[in-house]
Amino acid sequence: MSAQPTTPLSSTPRSSLGRLAERGRTDRADLYDVLDAGIVCHLGIVLDGAPVVLPTGYGRVDDTLYLHGSTGASTLRAAATGMPVCVTVTHVDGVVYARSVFHFSMNYRSAVVHGTARLVTDDQERLDGLHALVENLAPGSWAHARQPNRKELAATTVLALDLAEASVKVRTGPPGDDDADIADPAYWAGVLPVRTVFGEAEPAPDLIPGTPATPDHVTAR
Amino acid sequence: MSAQPTTPLSSTPRSSLGRLAERGRTDRADLYDVLDAGIVCHLGIVLDGAPVVLPTGYGRVDDTLYLHGSTGASTLRAAATGMPVCVTVTHVDGVVYARSVFHFSMNYRSAVVHGTARLVTDDQERLDGLHALVENLAPGSWAHARQPNRKELAATTVLALDLAEASVKVRTGPPGDDDADIADPAYWAGVLPVRTVFGEAEPAPDLIPGTPATPDHVTAR
Repeated sequence: MSAQPTTPLSSTPRSSLGRLAERGRTDRADLYDVLDAGIVCHLGIVLDGAPVVLPTGYGRVDDTLYLHGSTGASTLRAAATGMPVCVTVTHVDGVVYARSVFHFSMNYRSAVVHGTARLVTDDQERLDGLHALVENLAPGSWAHARQPNRKELAATTVLALDLAEASVKVRTGPPGDDDADIADPAYWAGVLPVRTVFGEAEPAPDLIPGTPATPDHVTAR
Repeated sequence: MSAQPTTPLSSTPRSSLGRLAERGRTDRADLYDVLDAGIVCHLGIVLDGAPVVLPTGYGRVDDTLYLHGSTGASTLRAAATGMPVCVTVTHVDGVVYARSVFHFSMNYRSAVVHGTARLVTDDQERLDGLHALVENLAPGSWAHARQPNRKELAATTVLALDLAEASVKVRTGPPGDDDADIADPAYWAGVLPVRTVFGEAEPAPDLIPGTPATPDHVTAR
């Protein structure tokens, strides 16, 4: 176990990688890539001394990650009180079949962000955060949908998390079997790629006559 | 916000759904379905008072979830000391395009398990747990790979988590726009399905002559 040297992404012990530090990426662009390629993160908070991990959407503007939720959501309310949070985004890229059970693995990209969420109160930043959230989930959609009204904005909590303390880990390539196993032709080994794909758009059943056809920003995705 | 009645899956306040309780599933079979359909979970633990959320593999045997990792992994070591953990598995099934920004959403299935991980020390249960982990990641593979030796087993931490306290949440179907928006043909609405698919197997570049061809349990996946 070797500690990772201080880098632009890893300035604290918890964001420095312990095991398999060779999988660590230290370029801020790698963090952006992993975050921008995903649509769901896992938000961790501590409630009554126990961890709670929930999936939720997010959006990024420069070095700020935005989360949102109903003002009625207890986890969001808790995260808004200045307690530490952890946001993790993971992409599974492949199943790694090894010759030995011990070396089965996954190819993946993951980003782990530590910090303290800030409740966004400025109206313009709230809109900017929601814009980033919608555009991350459904690129091109913000301009093609009704904008939020005062009541909807009042019902929405927007949180901001600085991308100051983060780590990125990536595994690629074939299995890392032991030499003795590689020399033995008994077992097949390789990688089965895993991809996330979009299917064909399903228009809402209650679209009324005169509604535009499925727009390009949906069909081209 | 209405509390969910006690059910086979939700026996505590934290595993009872608050908001959008209509998305909750209370059948144990739904929990199994969500868990068995995934290959990566997000494990949450509390370290120095802050949440840490990391992606990792898992396997299920009846009502026990198994996790594993290197004996050198600090998070696994911490989780093995009897502290509370949270394990969440999420599948994104679709992007929900609404007429209004406010109603954009995701179709998804998620399972959240709360509990205290138990360090597995019994040799047979350790093997059973690793078997479940490998078979969940790569079905059919355990019998097609070299079994773990004493040294590999000694380097592996296996944790067990009872599926006693869990919640399952599922969203399906079209957007839930307001009536006034549905009556307005200005904006398209619908669902873009999201699927996880396997690509074509990539044999390891260092397979030696005489190695079997890519086996059926890989190609048929």
